[in-house]
Amino acid sequence: MISDLQDVFSVNAKGMQKSVIRELLKLTLRPEIISFAGGLPDPKAFPTDEVAGITADVLRRDGASVLQYGPTEGDPRLKAQIIAHHEQQDRITLKQENVLITVGSQQGLDLVARIFVDIGDVVIVGLPSYVGGLQAFSGYGARMVGVPLDDHGTRVDLVERELEKLRKMGKKPKFIYEVPDFQNPAGITMTEDRRLKLLDLAKRYDVLILEDSPYRELRYEGEPVKPIFKLDGNGQVIGLYTFSKILFPGMRLGWVIADEAIIQKLVTAMQAADLCPPSFNQAIIAEFAARGLLDKNIERVKAIYREKRQIMLKALEDHMPDIPGLRWTKPDGGLFLWVTLPDHMDADEMFYEAVEQNVAYVVGSAFHSDGGGRNAMRLNFSYPTKEEIVEGVKRLGKVIESYDRVKARARQQIASP
Amino acid sequence: MISDLQDVFSVNAKGMQKSVIRELLKLTLRPEIISFAGGLPDPKAFPTDEVAGITADVLRRDGASVLQYGPTEGDPRLKAQIIAHHEQQDRITLKQENVLITVGSQQGLDLVARIFVDIGDVVIVGLPSYVGGLQAFSGYGARMVGVPLDDHGTRVDLVERELEKLRKMGKKPKFIYEVPDFQNPAGITMTEDRRLKLLDLAKRYDVLILEDSPYRELRYEGEPVKPIFKLDGNGQVIGLYTFSKILFPGMRLGWVIADEAIIQKLVTAMQAADLCPPSFNQAIIAEFAARGLLDKNIERVKAIYREKRQIMLKALEDHMPDIPGLRWTKPDGGLFLWVTLPDHMDADEMFYEAVEQNVAYVVGSAFHSDGGGRNAMRLNFSYPTKEEIVEGVKRLGKVIESYDRVKARARQQIASP
Repeated sequence: MISDLQDVFSVNAKGMQKSVIRELLKLTLRPEIISFAGGLPDPKAFPTDEVAGITADVLRRDGASVLQYGPTEGDPRLKAQIIAHHEQQDRITLKQENVLITVGSQQGLDLVARIFVDIGDVVIVGLPSYVGGLQAFSGYGARMVGVPLDDHGTRVDLVERELEKLRKMGKKPKFIYEVPDFQNPAGITMTEDRRLKLLDLAKRYDVLILEDSPYRELRYEGEPVKPIFKLDGNGQVIGLYTFSKILFPGMRLGWVIADEAIIQKLVTAMQAADLCPPSFNQAIIAEFAARGLLDKNIERVKAIYREKRQIMLKALEDHMPDIPGLRWTKPDGGLFLWVTLPDHMDADEMFYEAVEQNVAYVVGSAFHSDGGGRNAMRLNFSYPTKEEIVEGVKRLGKVIESYDRVKARARQQIASP
Repeated sequence: MISDLQDVFSVNAKGMQKSVIRELLKLTLRPEIISFAGGLPDPKAFPTDEVAGITADVLRRDGASVLQYGPTEGDPRLKAQIIAHHEQQDRITLKQENVLITVGSQQGLDLVARIFVDIGDVVIVGLPSYVGGLQAFSGYGARMVGVPLDDHGTRVDLVERELEKLRKMGKKPKFIYEVPDFQNPAGITMTEDRRLKLLDLAKRYDVLILEDSPYRELRYEGEPVKPIFKLDGNGQVIGLYTFSKILFPGMRLGWVIADEAIIQKLVTAMQAADLCPPSFNQAIIAEFAARGLLDKNIERVKAIYREKRQIMLKALEDHMPDIPGLRWTKPDGGLFLWVTLPDHMDADEMFYEAVEQNVAYVVGSAFHSDGGGRNAMRLNFSYPTKEEIVEGVKRLGKVIESYDRVKARARQQIASP
């Protein structure tokens, strides 16, 4: 081995952090633990039989091409299905040149960062924010400027303040990163009014918006809000999507929609990244969608998650202690909800006690680029069974209650020495 | 759209070049063209029936896990098969911690560049060199120092000269990039003596070697030469491999073998790049290998390509014009051979005439980071049928002959104005 391996790593590699979530997840793998920590889809929703049948058909029909290299930008048949999906879902009209197939939407995040971010460039992100996004951007040396959200989504007034501050310093962020629908981790959906205001800001300050929509299709109640991409219609928004949540993640397929000039640059970046997405997987999902099974699958997944979300919300009502300041979001869709503890409580500290009591969550601080979020936690309701949700929330309620008592005692002791 | 899109791209994105090969390939898509330009495996060698059967079995047995997210470093079952493969093939002993599954070996090239290369860092590469490697390295701002090869592989004496030159400037390359077996594009295999000398240099100058081995298993004659990784055995060599040539490229799976500390850093980089490789594809190939079908497939592929190589070599003997300086390599394996034209001929210029005559190749200049190689071309023998190989070489022989006559006339006119 060379003498100075650690020293030879690139600047960005030296700064790379292993995902805190992934490290914490390792603590939650004991079978007796009920984990709300992951973000996994429910495998009971996976259409395994249909996939086996379609794979056999696709290999029989097109074996020579589906096991061969394919175009970097993706299989035109899958792109056609994606175009039809957007047209049907949101009346977004796209051409083949506006779509790039990626290895999960994580590769979309990575490639967008790759083509835009130089070391020190600013990216505006919501707080809390999707960890995979933060990782991708910081991997290219981005400086993240965080803006908190409220129940209506990202605080656009604060985005404006940051844009103005940057403008005065002669700077412009490379893009504004948004997860407007059932945001991970908070489960919040941005109102149309906010989206319009954000878009107006983007126009005025001449900045791109990166709209990450992994959960958009998974709405369990209420009316859909138009995507920022649709509200714009003029190439200023880059959209990221994935099959991971509406179908399954095991084939690692997602996609980017954007202006043709941006897609072209992403294609060039992808040639160097991994040549092309897997033809085999694309052919299977294209055929799956062509047979109308994708729409059916989305309905099936929604029914499962709608019920689980309801069960988790009811369990929270039933089993959370009555402590002032303890509250949680009631997401209209997606996989997660967000619990906020009173300010004096520390979910990082409490985590080890929770694991001890065989229940796990993700600490809120993992989603903050600024060290905040320590009194919050993310709960996933898609993966655990219904019984596990009820039992897990019971355990969590007890952990919070006893942790609150310990904290109260500690405060008392400080107050009366 | 924002006002200055081209300006907003990152420095590296501004410098990104679309692959010359890929752009030229577009010219070769007319059905009447016999193309030696691609690097595709022969789809007749694809085991489509076995894949369909295994996919059904794997989905039946493990549907919940093979369509789910998997570990970033890859499926332990596939890694176990890879470990057994290296043990059997080259008596290389590896642990799970030494293996990372990637999306094709192109992702291996990209991730290695990502964790080592900062803008301006030097990488030593052979000339001619695999284009995907050059693209990956330059994507992170590497400065390539090229070293020519001869019939025994990279000129190690010249590598030493470059290392010494760099040392005097107080610089050290991040790694030396080598494709030692049936190198793409030249088809040359590096001798053991050269490999040992290169390794010795790497030790003395304290530099890593990146050994890219996409074709190693595809040897049609002669004795295998030990991989540099095996000759080292001490963590100074990173090995890249792929299923694309020994099985099929359509599932986009390759792997990296390296010291554990390097694999760990690559895993962290991969989390940000695309989270994890596809579980589905890994489970299928792991099962394929576990049933002993991978070894059988390699033998089948070798038999097909051995014959095609023989046919191309004979066709070259039969149909190439008798022009001084015209010669070609006789590779012991791989997918390509390399034709060198006399110095006064320009394969870039001749390319358009060749396409006119319905035969295509890749221009040698595409494999040179230094503008060289204009009198050379790469021919692929794995993809075209046997009949196409003979007919294509005939056409190419005529193109070269007539181009040589034109050039000779031009020289005469200059000589006698």
